[in-house]
Amino acid sequence: MPLEPKTIALVGKLNATGILQSLAEIADFLDDAGHTVVIESDTARNVELEGFATMTPAEIGQHAAAAIVVGGDGTMLGIARQLAPYNVPLIGINQGRLGFMTDIPLDRMIPVLADMLEGKFESERRSLLEGSVVRDGETIFSALAFNDVVVSRGAGSGMAELCVVVDGHFMYNQRSDGLIISTPTGSTAYALSAGGPLLHPNLGGLVLVPIAPHALSNRPIVLPDSCQIAIEVKGGRDISVNFDMQTFASLLHRDRILIQRSRHSVVFLHPKGWNYYDTLREKLHWNEYPSVEGQLK
Amino acid sequence: MPLEPKTIALVGKLNATGILQSLAEIADFLDDAGHTVVIESDTARNVELEGFATMTPAEIGQHAAAAIVVGGDGTMLGIARQLAPYNVPLIGINQGRLGFMTDIPLDRMIPVLADMLEGKFESERRSLLEGSVVRDGETIFSALAFNDVVVSRGAGSGMAELCVVVDGHFMYNQRSDGLIISTPTGSTAYALSAGGPLLHPNLGGLVLVPIAPHALSNRPIVLPDSCQIAIEVKGGRDISVNFDMQTFASLLHRDRILIQRSRHSVVFLHPKGWNYYDTLREKLHWNEYPSVEGQLK
Amino acid sequence: MPLEPKTIALVGKLNATGILQSLAEIADFLDDAGHTVVIESDTARNVELEGFATMTPAEIGQHAAAAIVVGGDGTMLGIARQLAPYNVPLIGINQGRLGFMTDIPLDRMIPVLADMLEGKFESERRSLLEGSVVRDGETIFSALAFNDVVVSRGAGSGMAELCVVVDGHFMYNQRSDGLIISTPTGSTAYALSAGGPLLHPNLGGLVLVPIAPHALSNRPIVLPDSCQIAIEVKGGRDISVNFDMQTFASLLHRDRILIQRSRHSVVFLHPKGWNYYDTLREKLHWNEYPSVEGQLK
Amino acid sequence: MPLEPKTIALVGKLNATGILQSLAEIADFLDDAGHTVVIESDTARNVELEGFATMTPAEIGQHAAAAIVVGGDGTMLGIARQLAPYNVPLIGINQGRLGFMTDIPLDRMIPVLADMLEGKFESERRSLLEGSVVRDGETIFSALAFNDVVVSRGAGSGMAELCVVVDGHFMYNQRSDGLIISTPTGSTAYALSAGGPLLHPNLGGLVLVPIAPHALSNRPIVLPDSCQIAIEVKGGRDISVNFDMQTFASLLHRDRILIQRSRHSVVFLHPKGWNYYDTLREKLHWNEYPSVEGQLK
Repeated sequence: MPLEPKTIALVGKLNATGILQSLAEIADFLDDAGHTVVIESDTARNVELEGFATMTPAEIGQHAAAAIVVGGDGTMLGIARQLAPYNVPLIGINQGRLGFMTDIPLDRMIPVLADMLEGKFESERRSLLEGSVVRDGETIFSALAFNDVVVSRGAGSGMAELCVVVDGHFMYNQRSDGLIISTPTGSTAYALSAGGPLLHPNLGGLVLVPIAPHALSNRPIVLPDSCQIAIEVKGGRDISVNFDMQTFASLLHRDRILIQRSRHSVVFLHPKGWNYYDTLREKLHWNEYPSVEGQLK
Repeated sequence: MPLEPKTIALVGKLNATGILQSLAEIADFLDDAGHTVVIESDTARNVELEGFATMTPAEIGQHAAAAIVVGGDGTMLGIARQLAPYNVPLIGINQGRLGFMTDIPLDRMIPVLADMLEGKFESERRSLLEGSVVRDGETIFSALAFNDVVVSRGAGSGMAELCVVVDGHFMYNQRSDGLIISTPTGSTAYALSAGGPLLHPNLGGLVLVPIAPHALSNRPIVLPDSCQIAIEVKGGRDISVNFDMQTFASLLHRDRILIQRSRHSVVFLHPKGWNYYDTLREKLHWNEYPSVEGQLK
Repeated sequence: MPLEPKTIALVGKLNATGILQSLAEIADFLDDAGHTVVIESDTARNVELEGFATMTPAEIGQHAAAAIVVGGDGTMLGIARQLAPYNVPLIGINQGRLGFMTDIPLDRMIPVLADMLEGKFESERRSLLEGSVVRDGETIFSALAFNDVVVSRGAGSGMAELCVVVDGHFMYNQRSDGLIISTPTGSTAYALSAGGPLLHPNLGGLVLVPIAPHALSNRPIVLPDSCQIAIEVKGGRDISVNFDMQTFASLLHRDRILIQRSRHSVVFLHPKGWNYYDTLREKLHWNEYPSVEGQLK
Repeated sequence: MPLEPKTIALVGKLNATGILQSLAEIADFLDDAGHTVVIESDTARNVELEGFATMTPAEIGQHAAAAIVVGGDGTMLGIARQLAPYNVPLIGINQGRLGFMTDIPLDRMIPVLADMLEGKFESERRSLLEGSVVRDGETIFSALAFNDVVVSRGAGSGMAELCVVVDGHFMYNQRSDGLIISTPTGSTAYALSAGGPLLHPNLGGLVLVPIAPHALSNRPIVLPDSCQIAIEVKGGRDISVNFDMQTFASLLHRDRILIQRSRHSVVFLHPKGWNYYDTLREKLHWNEYPSVEGQLK
C-alpha cells in the first residue's frame, strides 16, 4: 500500500457498544493523513459520522484502495464476501478478543494503522467457494461462501442421505446429519467442531467434513480446491443448504448442490511480523495445557 | 421360561416383504407346541393370520409371557418401549443382517425358538430413560426413550446453547448442534456416530455426547444412571427434543428438559451361548481391518 | 472427621520450591490445634521439619486419621496408591494451578483446613485397578493403578496385537499402538488424550481406550468395574505394560495381563461445597470458547 | 507406455506363497510379447526364475521402462522408495485383498497387463518426503518416506515434548506420544488411525497428526507440501524417528528432524478407468454400514 492519499472505507459491527467512537477515531486519523474516508452504507445507518461520504459495498469495491473493518470475525466474513469480486484488501480491528481475521487490538489500532499505511504489512490471500442449487437442470440459488457450505437435515427428522460426486467421479452415498464443505478459512470454525482438520490458507485445498456420519469410516477428506463437487440429495427430510450465513431451505430429493472454488479471493492485510501460526496458537490455546499436568507426568 | 403352555405374542415389522410367511411359521410352531398365540394389533392390521386373537401392546403387557418380534432393531425399539411398563421379555428375529437386539437369523428361528422355549436362553436387562419437557413449571410433554434423548437445533439456525445441570449441580453451558443423552442401548446408534463411547448394557450408566460442540474440550461424559439431568434451553432457534423417534419441536428459551432412568426396563431373551461381545464384534466388524494391512506392517 | 485430637500425616512433593515453608505452616497449625503431626518418610528426607516424628506410608496407614498432601496430582497419585490398603482419607493442597485431586489453593489452606477439621467437608471415594502379569501360568508382576493400566508397543516397532477377553468372553483382537484401561480418575488423564470419554467417579465403570487402533470401529468401550479383563499379547515387539508410573517391560507373546477393580479404594476429602462438575469445568476450560466466536455466530 | 519392446522389471513380495508362479506367469507373458524381463535382485534371491537377468533397484532405475510389483502395499512401499530417484513407473498386482497401490487382482493380471502395455492406463503421481536428523549442526541420518515420518516416545516413558517450526515460524510445543508427518499416500495408513483426515494425492499437501496429544486443541493440521518442517526434541525419553519402516532411535534433546517434500516422486500406473474414489470406497468400506440400520431409522 503506497503512501499517496487513497480512498479508504470504514465498516463497523452493527449495534456494537463503542463502535462510533472507534470509527470516529480511525476516520479522523485517516482524514488527517490526507486520505479520503468513506463509510459503508449499513454502517452509516447505524452510527452517525458527520462529514464523511457513504458508499455501498459495490461502490467501495469500485473506488476504495482498502477497507478497515472494526468488529469481530463475523463482521469481517459478511463484508469480505461482498467485496470479494472487487479485490479490495481488508484490515481487521477487533473490539474484544482477537479473531482469526480481525487481528489488530483496538487499543493499538492507530499506531498499527499508521505503520500499515506506510507499507509495513503482511498480505495474505484467502479463497472462497461458490455454490449453487440446481433443480431439474435449472439453477435456483447461488451464493459465495467464505467459511463453508453446509448441507444438513432438519431437527427431528431422520438422517440425510447425500450422494457426493467429485470431478465426475462417484465418491460415496453418505448418511449423516449433514456435510460441511469448508475452505481453509472455515477450517477453524464449524468444520473444526465437527471433527475436521485445520487447513493452512495457502494449501489450495478444501475439506469435506461429515457431521455425525453413520459409517465410522466416513472421515474428513481434504481435496484440491480445483475440484468440482456435486452433492445430490437422495434421502432425508427438511434438508437445507447454508452458504456462510445464507440459508436455502427446503431442498427436494434429486436437487443438486454444485460447489467449486470461486474465481474471486480476499486479501487480508496484517501488521508487519504477523504470521498464521501465532494466530492459531493464540486462538486454539496451544501451549496452555487444559488437562492435568500432575497426572500425566 | 418354563415348559408349560403360555400366551406368546407375535410382532412383525410393518410393510416388510415375507413377513406374513415368517409370522405364520412361528405361529404354527407355537400353536403345535400348545402355546396360545396372539398377534399384536398393528401387526394384525398389516398381515392376515387367520385363527389367532389380536391384542394391543397394553393387553400383551398384561397377558403374554413373552413377545417374539420379527423385523429389525427399529421394530424392536418401538415395541420394547410400549411393553416396558409390563416387564414382558422380548425375543428378536431378524429378516436380514442381524441386529443388536434382533439376533436370531430367520433361517434358524424354529430350532432356536424350540430350544429357548425349553429354557435354554440368556436373559439380559436393558434400561430406559424417561424424559419430560417443563415450561413455566408445568410438564407439557413426557416420553420414554430406549436409545436416546436428543436436544438439537434446527437446520440453518445458529448453535444451540444448552445449560446442563446434573443432580442440582451446574455442569456447563454448552454451545453445539445439540446434545445426545444415550442409554447403553443407544450407545451403538446415533451417539456412536457423534463420537460417543460404547457402553456395556450392565454398566448402570448413561452418556452425554455433544454434537459438533464449539469448545473442543466438551467431550462425551459418562454418568451413573441414577443421576437426574436437567437441560435448559438458553439460546438458539428451532430447538427440538427427540425421544427415540418421538419429536417435541418448538422448544422455547427457558424450557427445561428433565431426564432420568425410567423405573421400567426391558428384558431380552437370547439363544443359549449368546454374549454381548460376539454381537458387538459382528456388528462393528471388529477383526476385519478396513484399512491397509500392507501399508501398516 | 471429628474434633478430637488425631494423628495427621503430612506428605510433600519432592524437590519443590517453597514446600518446606508450606509444610511447616500446616504442621504448626495442626500442632496448635492439638493434633499429632507426623511426616511421611520420603518427605522427611527432603525437607527438615524439626520436632515431628516420621512414618513410612505403611505406618501412616496404620496410625493416621488423615493425610494432607501438598503438591500436584502426581504427588497425590503416588501416595494414594500406597495408602489405598489402609483407608486413610486424603486432603490435597496445590502449590500451583489446582488439580483434580489437589483442589485446595495454597494461599487459603489454613482457613480451609480449619473448617475441614471441624467436619465441614465433602468426601468422595475413588476406585483403583489391580493388575498382574502372568507368564506360563505364573504371576510375575503385580501392581495397583489409580489412573490406568497401559499396554503399549515400543517405538519403532510394528503394531501391538492384543487379544482382549472380558469375564471369559472373547472381545477382540486389537491391532494398535496399545490399549489403555482407565479408572474414572484416569479418564481425565492419558485416556482423554487418546480419545476416551470422561467417566464420573461414582459410575462404577472403567474404560478401554485403544491408542491409534488400526480398525476405525475400535472405539472406546465403558465396562462395569466388576468385570475381569484379560489381555494376551499376540503380536508386536517391545510390548510393555505400565501401571500408573510403574512399568513392566519386555512382555513376551502369550503373556497375559489380568486387570480387575481393587478391593481397596481411596477417599478424598474436599472443602464443603466442592463438587465434581466445578472441578471438571475449571480444568477443561468449559465455558471458555477456544475457537472463533465471530466466525460461528 | 508405448508398444515397442521395453525392459520391464519384476518385483515380488518376499517369502510369499505362490509368488514364484505369479512372477513366472508374468515373465512368460512379457517375454512372449517381446519385452526384456529383469528380476529385482532381492526377489531373485528368494524365487528362482530361470532365464531372466537380475538387476538391483538402482540398475532397474537406470534401465527399466516400468516395474511390476506382485505383493501388497508394503512390498510396493519398499520398492517405490528405492526407485523414486529414477522416475520408473510402477504397476501393482495384489495376491490377496486389493491395496491402495496394488490394485490389480491376481486372477485378472494378464489381460489387464496386456491392455496396459497397449497404453490403456491411468497414471498418477505421488509425492515423497525427505527427512534428516541434525545433531549439533551435523546431519547424522537422512531418508525418504513415502507414507510418513513419525517422531515418537518410547513405551513406558513420559510424554514427548516436541517444538515444531514451519518455514521458520514457531508453531507449537506439543506434548504427546508423538507426531506423524504424513503424505497423502500415508493419510490412509497410520495417520488415519491416529485421527488424521484423508488427503487426496493431488492435493499438494501434507498433514501433521499428533498422537494422543495432551492439549485437546492440538488437532491435525494440513500444510502445503512446499513447507519446511523442523521438529526439535525438547523433552521425553527414548524418542525415535521412523521414516516409513526405517527407524533412527535414541534421539537426544536438542536434536532436530528436518522434513520437506522430496524432489523425487513416484508414478503409479493403474488400469484404464481406475479412479481414486473407487479405491477409497472399497478400502474404507464406504456404503457398507457397520452400525445399526434399524436403530438409526
